[in-house]
Formats: sequence, structure tokens, C-alpha cells
Amino acid sequence: MFEKPLGMRDTLPFFYNQKKRARQQLSESILSYGYSFMDTPLLEYHETIGKVSATLDQQLFKLLDQQGHSLVLRPDMTAPIARVAASQLKNAEFPLRLAYDGPVFRAQQTEGGKPAQFEQVGTELIGDQSSYADAEVISLLVESLKETGLKDFVITVGHIGYVKNFFYDVMGDDEPAIESLLSYLYRKNYVGYREMVKSLQLPHESKEALLKLLTLRGGEEIFDQSKSLARNQACISAVNELKQLYRLLKHYDVEQYIHFDMNLISHMNYYTGILFEGYAPNLGALLCNGGRYDQLLPTFELNASATGFAIRVERLVEALNEQEEQDERVAVIFDDDTHAHGIQKAKELRELGYQVLLQHLDQIPSVDAFKQDLVKTINLTEGDDQDE
Amino acid sequence: MFEKPLGMRDTLPFFYNQKKRARQQLSESILSYGYSFMDTPLLEYHETIGKVSATLDQQLFKLLDQQGHSLVLRPDMTAPIARVAASQLKNAEFPLRLAYDGPVFRAQQTEGGKPAQFEQVGTELIGDQSSYADAEVISLLVESLKETGLKDFVITVGHIGYVKNFFYDVMGDDEPAIESLLSYLYRKNYVGYREMVKSLQLPHESKEALLKLLTLRGGEEIFDQSKSLARNQACISAVNELKQLYRLLKHYDVEQYIHFDMNLISHMNYYTGILFEGYAPNLGALLCNGGRYDQLLPTFELNASATGFAIRVERLVEALNEQEEQDERVAVIFDDDTHAHGIQKAKELRELGYQVLLQHLDQIPSVDAFKQDLVKTINLTEGDDQDE
Repeated sequence: MFEKPLGMRDTLPFFYNQKKRARQQLSESILSYGYSFMDTPLLEYHETIGKVSATLDQQLFKLLDQQGHSLVLRPDMTAPIARVAASQLKNAEFPLRLAYDGPVFRAQQTEGGKPAQFEQVGTELIGDQSSYADAEVISLLVESLKETGLKDFVITVGHIGYVKNFFYDVMGDDEPAIESLLSYLYRKNYVGYREMVKSLQLPHESKEALLKLLTLRGGEEIFDQSKSLARNQACISAVNELKQLYRLLKHYDVEQYIHFDMNLISHMNYYTGILFEGYAPNLGALLCNGGRYDQLLPTFELNASATGFAIRVERLVEALNEQEEQDERVAVIFDDDTHAHGIQKAKELRELGYQVLLQHLDQIPSVDAFKQDLVKTINLTEGDDQDE
Repeated sequence: MFEKPLGMRDTLPFFYNQKKRARQQLSESILSYGYSFMDTPLLEYHETIGKVSATLDQQLFKLLDQQGHSLVLRPDMTAPIARVAASQLKNAEFPLRLAYDGPVFRAQQTEGGKPAQFEQVGTELIGDQSSYADAEVISLLVESLKETGLKDFVITVGHIGYVKNFFYDVMGDDEPAIESLLSYLYRKNYVGYREMVKSLQLPHESKEALLKLLTLRGGEEIFDQSKSLARNQACISAVNELKQLYRLLKHYDVEQYIHFDMNLISHMNYYTGILFEGYAPNLGALLCNGGRYDQLLPTFELNASATGFAIRVERLVEALNEQEEQDERVAVIFDDDTHAHGIQKAKELRELGYQVLLQHLDQIPSVDAFKQDLVKTINLTEGDDQDE
């Protein structure tokens, strides 16, 4: 009778208020950077959004509409916003700075504690292919997180062009093996990656290089190491993009939050250039991610580059780990004779900024228990209003 | 490629901002009355929520989860909140004052312009069976609407107990005929109602009485007329409840927004006492509704009375009919040499409260067009920053 579907959760008032506060702080930062918030429907056609989204088919919530079309609950906001940018907003002035805040869905197979619905606040900067855009998005992410009060977090930045071209360089056109290695990195299964590398029919030095990739993590010192590991033009160009990004992030004074990781893979088939993930130390899961995706808008017939980030609001609240807040409500208790007086008293208190419950005495099961949750109770039936 | 499912809509930035403003104003009023906001998942089991909700089965969005259970996209918030009140909140101090703000769903059969997803802001006051609770809910509804700037609206109040008991009194146990008449009133098909009354095998004076019901609309003068039309105890008691409600609404000084209608039926099987609907003159559809529902919580094994309202946010925005707002954004345009300067300039302006786009010149297709949308543009590449 009280059951909810797998992975679905209620948001009780205390958590609701924490989420609201975090959402407001994020959105103030995002607005201050000139982004415009918009929204899209929760249901989309599988044909238009389900297929282009980066979500595994088995993680999509699918349903049939009454006309027999296959629909999905939106698995992310990036694809729907790309749809809008390429249709209703295609005549707006580019670059477009768009933002969103809303629920997205992932069907869960098992009751493993993973949410099937969660809230994302995010941005999309569409039509700017420069490193300046990547730097803006990452700096805005850092600033938004700082504004919520989050102190300890790291943004790990990589480049999908580096990894892929490094693999092509070392392994030639062995696509299945490359896909497997990418998949190990995506799942951060480094043990699996190492074992697979050992099993490959490759010269010793190629295997060494593939294993060395795992060590390319750290500050700007890894740029030179990365170049010497993969000397092809595409890899060097990816490293140079990261160098340029780092230089611009220093202009924003956010470099202390940045960490580089040359084997970062955030999604299997989404990002096309710089990509990043954010972590907070007390949180055992991804807090936020993003990157450049230059092939999504062309699938909607708009020739535009894009970059953006998404923050998981429930996880941010968890990372913030705030103390239980004091209930700020005041109660005015009245009876049949003091209703009008109670309304007047409540009105005065509301004008002073209080949240005021106005409650008839007869409907309270236990006045003592009722009072306990509140900052203050004025009981007009006991002549409490003498101190006016 | 750009199609959306039937009745699904995008919310572009201008409308998004209008909705946000309305939502914030409503929620400030609701918070000031001591209500706590909460949320529930968008998907629920059909078994727990779909069946008890007041939504026609064909209007439910249904899907199967991977375990084969039937799920629904929530058709309203009242039933899910009742579920939470009767489970996770059952040991909280009653009366409970809960509020919500979120999307609900109605599957549409035809492209008739009706939305399949819309946003409701609402309240539930659970565990207070007095007229004081009904008066609070209606007064809070009026005050919330006024706070958004809505000037011209009417709350029409009726009582389901009056209509039903009047029908029983006149027509005895002819349940099918009673259901038909209730259904005509629910659909506000008064022509159909009149024709059906004429066709009934009833004494002339009974038919006269059934037709007279349609005239019982107006101010407090209809209370006496209503009593003399239906002299049974249950009807008189319903009228007395409305009289008492009216007296209490005067304490709140909101009586000028109230209109009575003794043949108002808001839902077929939901409300059990006082019920109400709100209309704005320039809006051809229901703006808000609510009432007392004393049989919903018992279906969740909680013996508690409840009353509440729900406001349709998109329709409220339509009724407010606000002028197109000025874009408040400022742009700072930079080039490779002025990036750090641009960041500094943007930061200063943000600290003054401006929303500032920081944009590299090379990524703007047309600077003149780009400027047009903005309040002000500072072009650092043209030495615009001399006036500091």
C-alpha cells in the first residue's frame, strides 16, 4: 500500500529545503554568468531523444503512448536542449547560454540504493568552439559549487581525443580491443584494463605504453609526459588544448580545484573533446560532470559545437552534509472566540517575516507535543497575547 | 526529428522566468502560513496511487517496470502526499500542513491543445476537520493568488453533501439517474441536465426542485433559499457549514473573492464536503481547485480528515498576462589579449548584481545582432572599458 517503484524516493520537508537552498545558490551563480534557464517535457519520443542520449537502452524508462509510439522519460537534459536549440532557438543569437534544473530518470534493475529519478542542475554553452568556452563552463562549475558552501572538491579534466588517438596509434585498427579498453576506463576498472593489456598480442613496448597511460594523472607536469607517450599529431593537439585550458582557468583563479587525468572517459559515445568529472571526498559517487560534445547538435541538423556541465543535486546536498536546521515556524493557537484575533496576530507576525501556523485548539491531539516542533507558540486561549 | 509527444511542451526562457516568478510568490505565501514543502517521485505504482487518484484511467500514463509491475506517472499530488502522511509522517504532530510544487500528468487522446504535463503548486492540511481549516485553505489560496499580482478572480464554493443529499431526497435510490445528473453538473453541461430532468419519471414539483438547484448561485442570500429547497437534515447541515465558513472567511477579509454555487461538482469521487474552484475572467479554463477529502487518508489506513488546494501554474501565468520583460543581461566581449581583463570586468559587474555574459569576439557570428538582445555591451576589443 505504501510501496514505491524501484529506486523512487520521497523528499520529506527537511531534505526538500536543503535541495531548494542548493538549487537556488547554483542557479544564482549560473544566472550571474548570463545563462537563461529553460525546461523541456519529462516525456520524449524514443526516436528523437532516447536514441541520441548517452544512456544505455536498458536504463531507459520506456512506455507506449495511446497512438502506439515509443516514449521515454528523459534520461538527461542535454539531448532535449539540443533539440530545442536546433529548432525553436535556431534563429536566436549564438553562442547560446542555456541552463536547466529538473528531474532525469534511469531505470534500475536491482534495489541497490541507486535512484531511478534524480535532479540535475546544468548548463549548455552552444555555438562556441573555443577553449574560452570550456574554461568558462569549468570555472562556472567551480564557482557554483563554491557558492553552495562546498569547500573540498576536485574537478578532474581529461580529453577524449587523447585517449582514442593514443589507442589508434598503439593498436592500429583493432576496434574491438580499443572498445574494450575504453570500456574498462569508463568503468574505472583499472585491474581489468591491466589484465586485458597483458593479454593483447602486442610488442612489449606497446603494452608498456598502454599501462603508462594509467599514470598520467596530476597537475600541469603531466602535459609533457603525455606528449612524449603519444607523439602523433592528434594527441599532441589534445594536450595543447588542455594546456591552453589550464592557462585560461588560471585567469579565473580556479586552478587549485583542477586535476588532470589523461585516461578519463565520462561517457561511451558523447564527448568529443575536453571532458571532466567532479568529486567531493566524503561522497562515494560522481558529483558532477560535463565536457564538449560536438556531434550531438549535428544529429539535429544544427552545425554547432557545444560544452556544458550537470550537477547532481541530491549528491551535492549529501556532500554539503549540513546540520539539521531549526524549525523556524511560530504557532498561534486560537479557539472559537479568538479566531479573528488569531488571524490578526498571525498577520502581524507574517509581516515581520515569520512563518506562522494558525491552529484551532480543538484540532490538536497534544498541545505539548505540537509545541515541541516550533520556535514559539502563542496560545490565545490562555491569554498569551498580553505582551503585545 | 524535432517532434514531442502529444500534449508535451518546451518551456523557453521567457515563459520559464514567468513561471519561476509566479511559483516563488505562491510559495512565499504558503511558507508564511507555516506549510512545509515536500516532493514525491514522478512514478508511482498503479496499485497504490493510480487507483485512488481522481483521474480517469484513460488519462493515466501507464508503463511497466522491468519487474512487470504497472506504474503511472503521477496524475496529482494529493494521493502521493496522503501516502507519505500515512506512512513516513504518521508519527509527526498533527494537524500536518504540507505543500508541493511539481509536474503532474494527464494522457491526451487528441491534439486539442490540452497539456499532458502541467505544474501544480498546492497545499494539504491534514488532520483538522473543522471549518477553520477550510477557511484557512481558501484564504491562503486567495492570498497566494493576490501576491502574484492577480487582481481579478473568483473562488466558487459549494458543498458535495448538499447536492448528493438533495438528489437522494428528491429521487430516492435511483442511483443511475443520480450519477447521470452529477455527471452533467461535473461537466457543467446544464442543457443536458435540464433535458435529463425533464425526461425523468418524477412528480412535477420534484422536477421543479431539480431545476431550481441550478439557480442557487450567488452570495450569502442563497443559504436560506438552499435550506428551503432541501429540507433534510444532511442538506441543512451542509448549508450551515457553508454559513460558518463564510463567517470565518470574513475574519480573513477575503469574502469579496467568494461566490457560492450549490451545484458545484469538482470531481466525481474525491471531495466529501466543502469544495471550490477558482477562475480568472480572461482565462477560459480552471485556474485552481480544492476542497475537503475525508475518505482518501482512510484508504491508506490513516483515520484523518484533510483539505487542500492546487493551483495550475501555467494557467496562472497566462491569467497574469505580463508584458514581455526586458532582458537584463550585460555582455563583456574580449579577445585573446583581454581575457583576464574581461574576467575581472565581468566579476565586478556580477558583484553589482548584473547578469554578465563573457564572450570571445571570434565566436560571435554577428556582433550587432548579438548586442541587440542585451541591456549593454562592453567591447574590450574596442577599448570600451575607458569609463571605469
